[in-house]
Amino acid sequence: MPTCDLLLTNATVLTLDERFTHYASGAVAVTGDSIAAVGDIAREYQAKQTVDCGRKVVLPGLVNAHTHAPMTLLRGLADDLRLDVWLLGYMLPVEREFVSPDFVKLGAGLACAEMIRSGVTCFADMYYFEESVAEVTAAAGMRALCGQTVLKFPSPDAASYEDSLALARDFITRWKNHPLIVPAPAPHAPYTCTAEILQACAALAVEFDVPLHIHISETLLEVENSRREHGMPVVPWVKKQGLFDAKVLAAHCVHVDEGEIRTLKNTRAGVAHNPTSNLKLASGIAPVAKMLASGLNVGIGTDGPASNNDLDMFEETRLAAILAKGISGDPTALPARQALAMATRLGARALHLGHLTGALEPGKRADLIVLDLQPLHNAPAFARDANAVYSQIVYAAKSTDVTDVMCNGQWLMRDRKLLTVDEPALLRAARDYAKKIDIFLIQREGSVLQKLVAIGGAVEQESFEVQVKARVPGEAAEQALEVLQGDVITIIRSVHYHEYDTYFLFADPSQGRLRYREDEFLDDQGQVTSVRARLTLTGQAREGEFGSVLLSRSHYLAPATYSLRFYREYFKPVAEREVEKDRRRWLVVYKGVEFFVNLDRLIKPAVEGYYLEIKSRTWSRRDAQDKAAIISELLGLFGASPDNALKEDYVELTGRK
Amino acid sequence: MPTCDLLLTNATVLTLDERFTHYASGAVAVTGDSIAAVGDIAREYQAKQTVDCGRKVVLPGLVNAHTHAPMTLLRGLADDLRLDVWLLGYMLPVEREFVSPDFVKLGAGLACAEMIRSGVTCFADMYYFEESVAEVTAAAGMRALCGQTVLKFPSPDAASYEDSLALARDFITRWKNHPLIVPAPAPHAPYTCTAEILQACAALAVEFDVPLHIHISETLLEVENSRREHGMPVVPWVKKQGLFDAKVLAAHCVHVDEGEIRTLKNTRAGVAHNPTSNLKLASGIAPVAKMLASGLNVGIGTDGPASNNDLDMFEETRLAAILAKGISGDPTALPARQALAMATRLGARALHLGHLTGALEPGKRADLIVLDLQPLHNAPAFARDANAVYSQIVYAAKSTDVTDVMCNGQWLMRDRKLLTVDEPALLRAARDYAKKIDIFLIQREGSVLQKLVAIGGAVEQESFEVQVKARVPGEAAEQALEVLQGDVITIIRSVHYHEYDTYFLFADPSQGRLRYREDEFLDDQGQVTSVRARLTLTGQAREGEFGSVLLSRSHYLAPATYSLRFYREYFKPVAEREVEKDRRRWLVVYKGVEFFVNLDRLIKPAVEGYYLEIKSRTWSRRDAQDKAAIISELLGLFGASPDNALKEDYVELTGRK
Repeated sequence: MPTCDLLLTNATVLTLDERFTHYASGAVAVTGDSIAAVGDIAREYQAKQTVDCGRKVVLPGLVNAHTHAPMTLLRGLADDLRLDVWLLGYMLPVEREFVSPDFVKLGAGLACAEMIRSGVTCFADMYYFEESVAEVTAAAGMRALCGQTVLKFPSPDAASYEDSLALARDFITRWKNHPLIVPAPAPHAPYTCTAEILQACAALAVEFDVPLHIHISETLLEVENSRREHGMPVVPWVKKQGLFDAKVLAAHCVHVDEGEIRTLKNTRAGVAHNPTSNLKLASGIAPVAKMLASGLNVGIGTDGPASNNDLDMFEETRLAAILAKGISGDPTALPARQALAMATRLGARALHLGHLTGALEPGKRADLIVLDLQPLHNAPAFARDANAVYSQIVYAAKSTDVTDVMCNGQWLMRDRKLLTVDEPALLRAARDYAKKIDIFLIQREGSVLQKLVAIGGAVEQESFEVQVKARVPGEAAEQALEVLQGDVITIIRSVHYHEYDTYFLFADPSQGRLRYREDEFLDDQGQVTSVRARLTLTGQAREGEFGSVLLSRSHYLAPATYSLRFYREYFKPVAEREVEKDRRRWLVVYKGVEFFVNLDRLIKPAVEGYYLEIKSRTWSRRDAQDKAAIISELLGLFGASPDNALKEDYVELTGRK
Repeated sequence: MPTCDLLLTNATVLTLDERFTHYASGAVAVTGDSIAAVGDIAREYQAKQTVDCGRKVVLPGLVNAHTHAPMTLLRGLADDLRLDVWLLGYMLPVEREFVSPDFVKLGAGLACAEMIRSGVTCFADMYYFEESVAEVTAAAGMRALCGQTVLKFPSPDAASYEDSLALARDFITRWKNHPLIVPAPAPHAPYTCTAEILQACAALAVEFDVPLHIHISETLLEVENSRREHGMPVVPWVKKQGLFDAKVLAAHCVHVDEGEIRTLKNTRAGVAHNPTSNLKLASGIAPVAKMLASGLNVGIGTDGPASNNDLDMFEETRLAAILAKGISGDPTALPARQALAMATRLGARALHLGHLTGALEPGKRADLIVLDLQPLHNAPAFARDANAVYSQIVYAAKSTDVTDVMCNGQWLMRDRKLLTVDEPALLRAARDYAKKIDIFLIQREGSVLQKLVAIGGAVEQESFEVQVKARVPGEAAEQALEVLQGDVITIIRSVHYHEYDTYFLFADPSQGRLRYREDEFLDDQGQVTSVRARLTLTGQAREGEFGSVLLSRSHYLAPATYSLRFYREYFKPVAEREVEKDRRRWLVVYKGVEFFVNLDRLIKPAVEGYYLEIKSRTWSRRDAQDKAAIISELLGLFGASPDNALKEDYVELTGRK
């Protein structure tokens, strides 16, 4: 008679295997970290320990296919807001201030505790300091695909994308062979990464044979921008960057067409469907039934607890099932059994971990949960239809009906008691963090940025900028115009306008300066053709200097939809400055790089001569350095000397008067 | 110092009053069945008993604005099916067989227990034997609007609509002044009632000054049918019947336009939004944000637990909040605070019980719950934003976080223990019922109706029919044609066709006979212009006889989309009979009543002479009797004698050969 370490008996066993094999009265034999046998096998095994499941249901541990676990610490911080207000006004500033390995460990610990309680044994994560998530998850005994975020912006754990890529490589190298953790690069999203970043992340994933975790086509805006910028929707564009050379887990895929679904299927990508988050943030509803029909592995995810606001896979699975019916008009769409398969087997496959988890089959890891279907809210039960048990689980069971959880052969919860996580300590520490975040945000209530964001539409200018400005005499301006007409520079477009700037200054200079600008666009005859007004909030900080070339970032732009009078009353500046100038502006290419060249004549304050500005966007410090060198060269070409370069903004010239 | 019976202290008190007054640390004073005071009043009252709430949240008991409580006993019986299959194949047959006062009491008891556990203190119900729901609910100490169903079909508690109306009147008379129960007539829906039923129910509600509970515009089909039959959508049609003379609670309102929303608002109707049921049955998504913007009182309901499948108002409220955002593309739509108001104050108003419950205000009944927001899945909490607590409740709290429930000043649950309901006894009895239902349905697996429904599209012919058939000689047929051309009868339309009927007979005659019919429609020259095929399942039973006129019902019609061969193989009849005939058919009006007149010549089996059939639809036994008298008169007019009337179907003539 074969032996096993543990025998779970007297249970309804749902294997969630390909054929949905289930045993009305069955058993599961576990040896070491794995399942030895499943079925009517109770009398065939000699077990070191036997656990009578009291007619409860044993099924695979649920797979949360997409989350940002540490964001438990930001749960409920700011809800029911426009996406930009939520993100720019709350999430990003708080993350910038607070996210650290300590924050990440605490948040991930809370998330693990919550997920274990609700029957999750495996999840796919994406955050900063992901190695801290991995440490906490491994200590809690859970399985996870841990994605180290890579972004074109600076992030809490990396000043540049090169840094975050290096972090990802280190993390993957160290954790590659861990029994519970699968490390992965997580390029955040196509619109927050460059082509180069996507290519580098895919290459990294291929090099180490690990999956790659990314957000794809979450919002319609993302797709529209992709069509405009790349002439195609998101999936073909990332395919062109070689992303699917890696084993991709694509979160969201709300706005994908049939061709994109085919591409995802053909490239063996997995998809994480996040119905609560997609509804709550008003992103839309993913075409899940179509994806499943195409044979795609679609799992279900909660997304981060700042946009959900919990990690309850029972709620998520129910929502996936009923939403698919509601939007298709077909009540037979996504039946309960298929929805539960998404939450288990298909989710595991979407994470590229289907060989390890997601179904109760001999040889797979012992990742399983025990569920009580006998409470009042699930009574009575009918035996006629073999699918009724799936319906009970999906349409009426609650996460609080999970009584026991095992992962990798280890009990994580017994009789609703957590065994691997110190819940009271986590709760205490979370309270302390929440207090600090509260204080931080309350202090910021008077912040100009906060107020700008609160009235809507403020977007962070998504780049570094390298720039130089030099005062040039009238004749140098003539020379510059000749150079622009010449052979070495290609003009892409040019424009001529009259700028009226009003700067609001604040008592606390760290608030930055808010500029209200009205531009009158002029035609060849100097007639006004159109007018545009917008707000820009600029910080004081310079990121760096390369000789006379300055590196700056963090401008917030917003369309000025109200009057100057409104903004004056709303922002209550302590002082104002006015600047008026005539500007000719060219977008040019020089040595294969795009630059903006401005030739400005100051009217208010009235200053003799001209100012020549040369600017370019950049994504990394290395690129900035390269462009700074070309800018200096251009400056020479235009006959200006770096000695005449100015570091002040025009508004600072008004201060001199 | 004023006294009170009970003082709840040390709580976050959310009053959910008009101004959303809330106390971060407050108290509630209760005297008798009512709230004496709310706020910072702990030291102002001398209380017989004080309960320290341990910093939990006290808020109004939730209002489940629409359900069919006894259907807990049918929970999970049949899911993921087409609406017709679900309804005709499972719900109606099982209800016909099992629904009794005993069934209703048990089901309502289970529902009360589940609702108390999840923080509901008041609900709006609609079912059969509603007085039994009222008895159980009052015994459980809950508040309810109890709607006695009125239908044009026979129902488990009434053979005709007159009977169900009488039931409603009796029920209302007896319960009108009960402290917890508000009785009401519940005409099921416009499409299952006649104009007369709607008018009678409205008059009844007005007479006793009680609300009226009805389903309105749940499906697009209902609206399309209303437009076709009445030339207008549902709301104006029921308004025309005087429905809104009563205080209406309209459940669903999924497909209502802006004019209908205005009408509902102007007539002070309440609306119950049932998002889970509307998604699960693929009915659609109600325009809730628009309704709320118009000032309508929109509550939230779970609908019956056979279409949900539970009574969890926390899930329902969260779904209402996120769904409104997802479908509008606006993440600020239906914020958490407003969603919670729907689940409390607005729901109470929708039930026309806003003067009693739905908010914590002095003078209102003490209907309140205590909620623990400190478990893991709701940690941490932020104090900066006063709305954060609503967000915690709506987006992350679970029904299992409710610890204490009070209704009408009486505790129904303390520390998660039910005080007024015997939960183990209910669970035992529910298990016994489920077994019986299982056995019943398993036996029916071989049922012809079941099989017909399973292949889709079967609809129950929604009427009684009175009919007579008489054999007439050739010259009588000539006479009949002359009478039809004459003055006393108005012909609305006529048609001529050739019928090929194949009858399937089954070993068990109670299965009925299944007829596969192909009709060839003929023009004046006898040329075939079109062909139609359909299936009809007829029972053996006759409802009654009025002389030679027969009263029958319960035909199931389905379009025959497959071949005769398919049906033969699928239904496996033990015998077949063929009938072929030439039929001329007229829709006529005689004495203000519509009749169908068929003049048939039998080809197979070949029979000399003609058969004259006269039929009319009817809704009630009294109406049937009236029409039977006119039919006998018509028969005479056509020169046929009641003595020649046949009670057999044509297929029975084939048996004679």
